[in-house]
Amino acid sequence: MEHDVVTVLGLGAMGTALARALLVAGHPVTVWNRTPARADALVGEGARPAPDPASAVAASPLTIVCLLDHAAVRTVLDGVDLAGTTLVNLTSGTPEHARATAAWLAERGAEVLAGTIMVPTPLVGPEEGLVLYSGSAAVHERHRTTLEALGRTELLGDDPGRAALFDLGMLDVFFAGLASFLHAAAVVGRDGVPAGEFVRYAEEVVAILPATFRGLAKDVDAGTHPGDEDNLVMDAAALAHIVATSRARGVDPALPELVHGLARRAIDRGHGGDGFSRVVDELRSPRRPGAAAGPAGAAAR
Amino acid sequence: MEHDVVTVLGLGAMGTALARALLVAGHPVTVWNRTPARADALVGEGARPAPDPASAVAASPLTIVCLLDHAAVRTVLDGVDLAGTTLVNLTSGTPEHARATAAWLAERGAEVLAGTIMVPTPLVGPEEGLVLYSGSAAVHERHRTTLEALGRTELLGDDPGRAALFDLGMLDVFFAGLASFLHAAAVVGRDGVPAGEFVRYAEEVVAILPATFRGLAKDVDAGTHPGDEDNLVMDAAALAHIVATSRARGVDPALPELVHGLARRAIDRGHGGDGFSRVVDELRSPRRPGAAAGPAGAAAR
Ligand SMILES: NC(=O)c1ccc[n+]([C@@H]2O[C@H](COP(=O)([O-])OP(=O)(O)OC[C@H]3O[C@@H](n4cnc5c(N)ncnc54)[C@H](OP(=O)(O)O)[C@@H]3O)[C@@H](O)[C@H]2O)c1
Ligand SMILES: NC(=O)c1ccc[n+]([C@@H]2O[C@H](COP(=O)([O-])OP(=O)(O)OC[C@H]3O[C@@H](n4cnc5c(N)ncnc54)[C@H](OP(=O)(O)O)[C@@H]3O)[C@@H](O)[C@H]2O)c1
Repeated sequence: MEHDVVTVLGLGAMGTALARALLVAGHPVTVWNRTPARADALVGEGARPAPDPASAVAASPLTIVCLLDHAAVRTVLDGVDLAGTTLVNLTSGTPEHARATAAWLAERGAEVLAGTIMVPTPLVGPEEGLVLYSGSAAVHERHRTTLEALGRTELLGDDPGRAALFDLGMLDVFFAGLASFLHAAAVVGRDGVPAGEFVRYAEEVVAILPATFRGLAKDVDAGTHPGDEDNLVMDAAALAHIVATSRARGVDPALPELVHGLARRAIDRGHGGDGFSRVVDELRSPRRPGAAAGPAGAAAR
Repeated sequence: MEHDVVTVLGLGAMGTALARALLVAGHPVTVWNRTPARADALVGEGARPAPDPASAVAASPLTIVCLLDHAAVRTVLDGVDLAGTTLVNLTSGTPEHARATAAWLAERGAEVLAGTIMVPTPLVGPEEGLVLYSGSAAVHERHRTTLEALGRTELLGDDPGRAALFDLGMLDVFFAGLASFLHAAAVVGRDGVPAGEFVRYAEEVVAILPATFRGLAKDVDAGTHPGDEDNLVMDAAALAHIVATSRARGVDPALPELVHGLARRAIDRGHGGDGFSRVVDELRSPRRPGAAAGPAGAAAR
């Protein structure tokens, strides 16, 4: 089997893992990095170093870009002729970044697929890797076999921002989960309970999240929030207990306070008998002054 | 087999479910509720109504209490002679509430086990129920078979506050999970993605939480926070993208902003190369003025 020639721009921790996975799969790989010494190990494994981004891009029909951020992508590719090239941009950012970079690259003649790598570097590869893609379905189709050397691929439609959107939605749930576990661990720790003893109980909670999320998703899409067995008044009472227990132990109560505040806002609007999914309406209409119009909001647009 | 006589005080949604599970298991059940009509259905199923709390408690060697809150427990049992009785208090509250109520009941002569019901009313019963207990191991041992009619039992030691502590730790993780899923759903919804389409991706995140929690627990207990492949600087960059993406869509960014703030605080203290578990130190030493000394904190003590 013939293996496509591939270029990788950017040899940080992730770019190196991508280039290595391609080499392992049998692809001839051309690499470039701002700091050339970072290519040395890969060159020892068979990669061809290019002297500059332009010759790196010219060496292969497919170039994978994985740099620190989208500003670095523009810095590296500024002035490089991209006519007729195919770029797969795996640099993290917001959907707005991904869309703007895709448009900027397309203006310079490239066909563009945007992607987000969903696994840490040791899991990059065909067995455990996962990359979400969006943008050109043609590029995804044409280079599918090559991309599968990096991990399972999922194409999320032609909006180049869609992969970043899903990536950040997933990370939103991930980091809130981590922060809440650490908060609970800090609270129980004050009463002498090791985190390693509590973790088994946190895992019991995790076990019911998938079905709970599916129930919330159904309510969100239907726009109805039947309380059934649970309701916001009961939820707010439990959240108030969490806040008080955290405060009483000198542990920062801001996280449960925030969730309690969302439930209270929904109750104040007359939804006390509704299920917790009603909180989605509070998130959609932030009350905090300027929440949607601050400097960060302006920067992201 | 002989079945113990049991009294249930409080026939709200949960008290009714408890009394019904005991009847189904074959126990003679005496019930009392402030609003007597709420006992009617259970009486039709074989329960014996008592005219007042004192005669209800006197009718059985074991009384299960499930009222709205701990204040209601004192209101109902004030002046009732509890000498020689055994009370299992399944009323929700903080560890401080559970300890204070247990002491108050013990002063009046009762032997006390405190518990928290971990399932909604339809799951109460021997198959799917789960109740965490703490306090008198003797009561747990003596009435174990009876209590198993309500669900699996777990005894967490002799501090009567311990069951509430674990309950609230679990709910802390649960509600943060729900709120973050709703936040992500609100964000992706702005770009036209139904929650029902996104939920599959959120479930992929949930799948990695147990192993991630175990890793965090190990770090928390060891007091070391090796970054390995991940580190707080990378985490903060991703969290900043989540905040910007939320703001750009007019969705309340407070939840990811809070988590981002915790990561930033740890970075500002020189821990940028550490793993996310380092955030536990920020939670333990809240910077927000008065966070541990406000009125709610005072009330909980
Ligand atoms: N590491 C992970 O586990 C992981 C997981 C998922 C996604 N990602 C994403 O993958 C991307 C790369 O991450 P990484 O872990 O490889 O980061 P990294 O180790 O910090 O590497 C950053 C890369 O960007 C280059 N770079 C930065 N600024 C530049 C500039 N102005 N001009 C030219 N090159 C520049 C660096 O070149 P020098 O070597 O010359 O500094 C290096 O190649 C990021 O968007 C990250 O979010 C990483
Ligand atoms: N429902 C659940 O899914 C669930 C799950 C886990 C834990 N729990 C906990 O179980 C406990 C009871 O919950 P629930 O769902 O049964 O609540 P509920 O349906 O609102 O019932 C509240 C009960 O408390 C009684 N009560 C309230 N204030 C009283 C007072 N001052 N004096 C005397 N009785 C008073 C009510 O009597 P009246 O009928 O006279 O008003 C009723 O029996 C709570 O601590 C709750 O957190 C519930």
